[in-house]
Amino acid sequence: MTERVRQILRGYDGQNPGTLTNLARLLNHGRLAGTGRLVILPVDQGFEHGPGRSFAMNPPGYNPHYHFELALAAGCNAYAAPLGFLEAGAADFAGEVPLILKLNNSDSMVSDTEPRQAVTGSVKDALRLGCAAVGFTIYPGSGHRFDMYEQFREIAAEARAAGLAAVCWSYPRGSGVSKDGETALDIVAYAAQIAAQLGAHIIKVKLPTAHLESPEAKKVYERNQIPRETMADRVRHIVQSAFDGRRIVIFSGGAAKSDDNALFEEMRGIRDGGGFGSIIGRNSFQRKKDHAVELLTTIMKIYAGEIA
Amino acid sequence: MTERVRQILRGYDGQNPGTLTNLARLLNHGRLAGTGRLVILPVDQGFEHGPGRSFAMNPPGYNPHYHFELALAAGCNAYAAPLGFLEAGAADFAGEVPLILKLNNSDSMVSDTEPRQAVTGSVKDALRLGCAAVGFTIYPGSGHRFDMYEQFREIAAEARAAGLAAVCWSYPRGSGVSKDGETALDIVAYAAQIAAQLGAHIIKVKLPTAHLESPEAKKVYERNQIPRETMADRVRHIVQSAFDGRRIVIFSGGAAKSDDNALFEEMRGIRDGGGFGSIIGRNSFQRKKDHAVELLTTIMKIYAGEIA
Amino acid sequence: MTERVRQILRGYDGQNPGTLTNLARLLNHGRLAGTGRLVILPVDQGFEHGPGRSFAMNPPGYNPHYHFELALAAGCNAYAAPLGFLEAGAADFAGEVPLILKLNNSDSMVSDTEPRQAVTGSVKDALRLGCAAVGFTIYPGSGHRFDMYEQFREIAAEARAAGLAAVCWSYPRGSGVSKDGETALDIVAYAAQIAAQLGAHIIKVKLPTAHLESPEAKKVYERNQIPRETMADRVRHIVQSAFDGRRIVIFSGGAAKSDDNALFEEMRGIRDGGGFGSIIGRNSFQRKKDHAVELLTTIMKIYAGEIA
Amino acid sequence: MTERVRQILRGYDGQNPGTLTNLARLLNHGRLAGTGRLVILPVDQGFEHGPGRSFAMNPPGYNPHYHFELALAAGCNAYAAPLGFLEAGAADFAGEVPLILKLNNSDSMVSDTEPRQAVTGSVKDALRLGCAAVGFTIYPGSGHRFDMYEQFREIAAEARAAGLAAVCWSYPRGSGVSKDGETALDIVAYAAQIAAQLGAHIIKVKLPTAHLESPEAKKVYERNQIPRETMADRVRHIVQSAFDGRRIVIFSGGAAKSDDNALFEEMRGIRDGGGFGSIIGRNSFQRKKDHAVELLTTIMKIYAGEIA
Amino acid sequence: MTERVRQILRGYDGQNPGTLTNLARLLNHGRLAGTGRLVILPVDQGFEHGPGRSFAMNPPGYNPHYHFELALAAGCNAYAAPLGFLEAGAADFAGEVPLILKLNNSDSMVSDTEPRQAVTGSVKDALRLGCAAVGFTIYPGSGHRFDMYEQFREIAAEARAAGLAAVCWSYPRGSGVSKDGETALDIVAYAAQIAAQLGAHIIKVKLPTAHLESPEAKKVYERNQIPRETMADRVRHIVQSAFDGRRIVIFSGGAAKSDDNALFEEMRGIRDGGGFGSIIGRNSFQRKKDHAVELLTTIMKIYAGEIA
Repeated sequence: MTERVRQILRGYDGQNPGTLTNLARLLNHGRLAGTGRLVILPVDQGFEHGPGRSFAMNPPGYNPHYHFELALAAGCNAYAAPLGFLEAGAADFAGEVPLILKLNNSDSMVSDTEPRQAVTGSVKDALRLGCAAVGFTIYPGSGHRFDMYEQFREIAAEARAAGLAAVCWSYPRGSGVSKDGETALDIVAYAAQIAAQLGAHIIKVKLPTAHLESPEAKKVYERNQIPRETMADRVRHIVQSAFDGRRIVIFSGGAAKSDDNALFEEMRGIRDGGGFGSIIGRNSFQRKKDHAVELLTTIMKIYAGEIA
Repeated sequence: MTERVRQILRGYDGQNPGTLTNLARLLNHGRLAGTGRLVILPVDQGFEHGPGRSFAMNPPGYNPHYHFELALAAGCNAYAAPLGFLEAGAADFAGEVPLILKLNNSDSMVSDTEPRQAVTGSVKDALRLGCAAVGFTIYPGSGHRFDMYEQFREIAAEARAAGLAAVCWSYPRGSGVSKDGETALDIVAYAAQIAAQLGAHIIKVKLPTAHLESPEAKKVYERNQIPRETMADRVRHIVQSAFDGRRIVIFSGGAAKSDDNALFEEMRGIRDGGGFGSIIGRNSFQRKKDHAVELLTTIMKIYAGEIA
Repeated sequence: MTERVRQILRGYDGQNPGTLTNLARLLNHGRLAGTGRLVILPVDQGFEHGPGRSFAMNPPGYNPHYHFELALAAGCNAYAAPLGFLEAGAADFAGEVPLILKLNNSDSMVSDTEPRQAVTGSVKDALRLGCAAVGFTIYPGSGHRFDMYEQFREIAAEARAAGLAAVCWSYPRGSGVSKDGETALDIVAYAAQIAAQLGAHIIKVKLPTAHLESPEAKKVYERNQIPRETMADRVRHIVQSAFDGRRIVIFSGGAAKSDDNALFEEMRGIRDGGGFGSIIGRNSFQRKKDHAVELLTTIMKIYAGEIA
Repeated sequence: MTERVRQILRGYDGQNPGTLTNLARLLNHGRLAGTGRLVILPVDQGFEHGPGRSFAMNPPGYNPHYHFELALAAGCNAYAAPLGFLEAGAADFAGEVPLILKLNNSDSMVSDTEPRQAVTGSVKDALRLGCAAVGFTIYPGSGHRFDMYEQFREIAAEARAAGLAAVCWSYPRGSGVSKDGETALDIVAYAAQIAAQLGAHIIKVKLPTAHLESPEAKKVYERNQIPRETMADRVRHIVQSAFDGRRIVIFSGGAAKSDDNALFEEMRGIRDGGGFGSIIGRNSFQRKKDHAVELLTTIMKIYAGEIA
Repeated sequence: MTERVRQILRGYDGQNPGTLTNLARLLNHGRLAGTGRLVILPVDQGFEHGPGRSFAMNPPGYNPHYHFELALAAGCNAYAAPLGFLEAGAADFAGEVPLILKLNNSDSMVSDTEPRQAVTGSVKDALRLGCAAVGFTIYPGSGHRFDMYEQFREIAAEARAAGLAAVCWSYPRGSGVSKDGETALDIVAYAAQIAAQLGAHIIKVKLPTAHLESPEAKKVYERNQIPRETMADRVRHIVQSAFDGRRIVIFSGGAAKSDDNALFEEMRGIRDGGGFGSIIGRNSFQRKKDHAVELLTTIMKIYAGEIA
């Protein structure tokens, strides 16, 4: 157990030892074990966008075993997916990589003005499948947000009691925010805060832009000169907004990039701003496995400080 | 146990000894212990307005430990916050200051015509975290008010059975009241009455203006010449409206003031009108800690009658 | 146990002995004990209209103890109020006057087209507080009426199992009835019938006018020459509509009257029409206590037949 | 409500208002209403000794209605019996006399070295039947005593939650006590203490003799010169042993006496020693009704202080 | 919060914040607040030995209020008693002294070869009464020990979830130990260990003698030269046996002593051996109140190091 991991766990003082144990499992697995950084492989694209849009560019991805293998080959800290994908590999890969069961999911079948997700799994499922954590998405900004907060509260309470960690995907979306607002610095910070206040152990948000959405927030940010020029500045503000470093905050790897260097640049910003890591889906499983492993290895080296 | 505290507790005759014990804990902690007055530190701004708008002017406030420390340094009777903030400090500060777990919360992500809040914690959470009380907001005036009343009823019943106190934030808001009406004397009195009838042990309302919102109430108030010139007059009417002094009524410290003297003047009005105290968030945690302690000390001196 | 009370109880043959016991408690308490008539003091005005509009004209009424004392001084059969008011006196006045816990309540904060009420207490609360009965309001005529009927059914079932009596306030209101219709003879009779069919043990309705709201009913009433000239005629029809005298029907004392003689005239109508009594709120607690006792004494004398 | 009854209820401070209400109902019914004394009619002899042994000497007693009528005619504070006897009259006599449902019962079918009783009713039954209290027997001294204590604890908890009073028949019996020991002063005092510690609201014990059973107790009683000459002395010690007067203690009327004067002499001792009253079965229902009423009337006059 | 109390609480790391809060409440109340030492007043003698043997030498002790007053006057850290005694004062003394509800109790009615106790209260009762902790006795050495361990486990689990502390009275007794063995060093150490392994937060044992009961233990103790000459030596071994100081261990004040100096000498041994304090029943409530306060004050001075 490294001092950095101990320090992170101290931020969770008062949580059940079981939850601490599972947080430690996530932090101590894979290539980044012990560094206090995480790179997680999430594959909920099949549910969110459909299989063709998700896997046609790298057909082995249709097979659920592929993603376990990818996470293992790349040395990810964990693999996160919906019930079906985990159930189809959890026995074969038992004990090989920490799992995160995503407990709600959305699809693209209908375009909802006020988006929400369907609850597609349970804490009992996560225990049965040997998961280290459960994941849940909330949409601050949606007319359904309060229902989602309440669902997450219940799931997080159940997870805590069972000694699991609760990961909250906090994505501003819906009638309350503009398209630009979804990644605005003030809004992403707010989304991180809400997840933390709801009791999330790990918070996943999108990388913020320098945009400020809310006029009231804009006044405060400008008056107090909150730096927001660089990605590192903005990540620092997000981490601060999630209990000043006492909650693990990770960032999505975003839409598939044509240019990996842009992606690496983002990771440097996360690293330098004190972010805890990334959750990288489309940029990894939508390319050939060896390319994906190469990409993830580079990212992990950036996080480990092995390369600038 | 002072005679004043005993007198207040007698107003709660018939309640469980556990609830009486926790009311006594609140009344007997901090600088105002035993005076029958309370100054409570609430920090739900992060959830309600976002972290930047709440903490950028005093960045230590991003850290959940800060608010425990502030409540301790200032000698507040209690510290009230949502689940995340309490969970992130309850073990480290166990037994140092009475805690109130705020069980529902709203955000500013969407502007709702008929506002409500999300339930974000439970009575079980409050017990687990060692709280003396639970807090819950209702919005009389909202189209969702009856749902909120019913949620509060259930939470208050569960709190009573567990020997906790139930604090009701009663804020008129929604299509039923105008902006001015939200702090109109008749409406604030009505909000206090509803909270008391729902079984709240402690009631928090906004400081009322001399405005009268409802034409029917206006007629009665004027015919019966209910005094409403001074703040003390208005506070007296609110305390009367909460079972004639048999329920503890505290008042919000309002929006951040540029002028502390205006704030002190309000406290004098609360004190002279027989109000039980204040719950002061933004005016305390949004300034440097030593300034906040100084401010809160002055306020407590006013309540204690040490300064006029 | 008088023969008249026995006769009334025989109308409830087959009900649990506990419910019969509590009906007997109501019928055998106070100045009208044993007469088969009831005068009940209800104080839900604070919730329904706000504290200022309810108590400013007689400020002792702000204090929950006042109403227990008034009911005792006047010798009322029972005192009915929401949770908060009963909780704040039930221990101090334990065993002194039968209590009815009003389990749902409305406010005047928002003007709803389709009115409903919030559930604000439970049968468990009623047992804990030593009540003889629970009360519940339904609004036949509202778009929410079926939800209210279903809520009442559940509460009445729970009350029956616990040996309590269930009192139904049946007030036609909402989009289904005109303003005049709310007190039309056919509509009030209909409201009484619905309450009886839902299993109410005691039914409270408003005093009906001679107006007939429904064209279909009007034809039948006129064809069958149902008398509706005098108050006694109309009361007789209402009692008939509530299972022909097998269910206790009581009438509201209506809005505060400037002329007590008008009120007494109404009571004579109720008495002569075979009504079981009155539930008199505003006309009692909104005047000085000795005046209220005097008024209630006169009313009880009318019911007892001591004065014409 | 007399001052004496208020004083007794104050001893139960912190109990639910419902329990206080039912204690008040017992104290305020019948000929002794308001005096703070009780005479209760118990008829569990049919179960305990068989019908012939119980009712042959006064055959109307075979009929369950008889005992309701006797309790009414004599003005007893309450009537206590097993499920069957209460069920067979509770509807017909609803509201006429407070009922105590005896929740466990023994028979004489088998002679048990370590006696216990069968649980024959529930708190739900008591509510359904309109009872003011439940009754339960424990046998300190029996090898089964701990099971009985645990059963009583659960029943008392359920009764409290439902606002009923819990009456404990505490009868030392079994291998732990000699026949003389069953009524020894130290043992009866101990039995009263155990019932009080288990949460009984009303405690029924046998009248103690001057005998001391336990050698350890004998030493203490003699060293501290606890008076035990007169019945009043001994009753005073028992009342002291039941929380120094904070719990109602009543005494059994004992075996059928040939000499009523001996019985009256016992009652004087109970009265003068500060006992709260008697529970008189065999001496009342095993003689003709008018004789029984006469006897009970004399006893009540003794308690009321109307005759020396 | 003193450093010593913080240090003690760190021994409980991973427990719920609520449990830590209640441990802090016990450690921070009364004359010894903050010293890390505790003197607790237990009054279960009435149940264990009968009222006469317990209270005849100081009759005010028959009254449940007396013991609250004694604990307050002496500045004890807590008052521990069975349900009845706590219920009869918890409302009147709400918030004045931390309470410990003793959840099982024994009596002296029968002499059992294999002793056990009856469960006489619940964690729900403890919450309702505002207790900081629950207490439970186990008898290692009894044939019923495993049932008692299982009962304690369940109660401790429920207490933990509710944020209470669980105190275990661990008294070797029964066919497995000789009379001398009940206080033998190896056996008392063993009893402390079992309580700690069962999850007790606070452990109460008897003061050990230098005797060694078990031949196997004797060999090891002698081979390893475990010091056992002085009381301090023996106390040190007991504290070591309860997780090396990570669990609070307190010692019973033993049978009523004729010589207070012998008692003080024991306290010095506890203090010097690192014991956490005493639970002193008979030696305190069986003498006049001012003498008891004087005695307890001297004991507290010894613990506080104010006198040698």
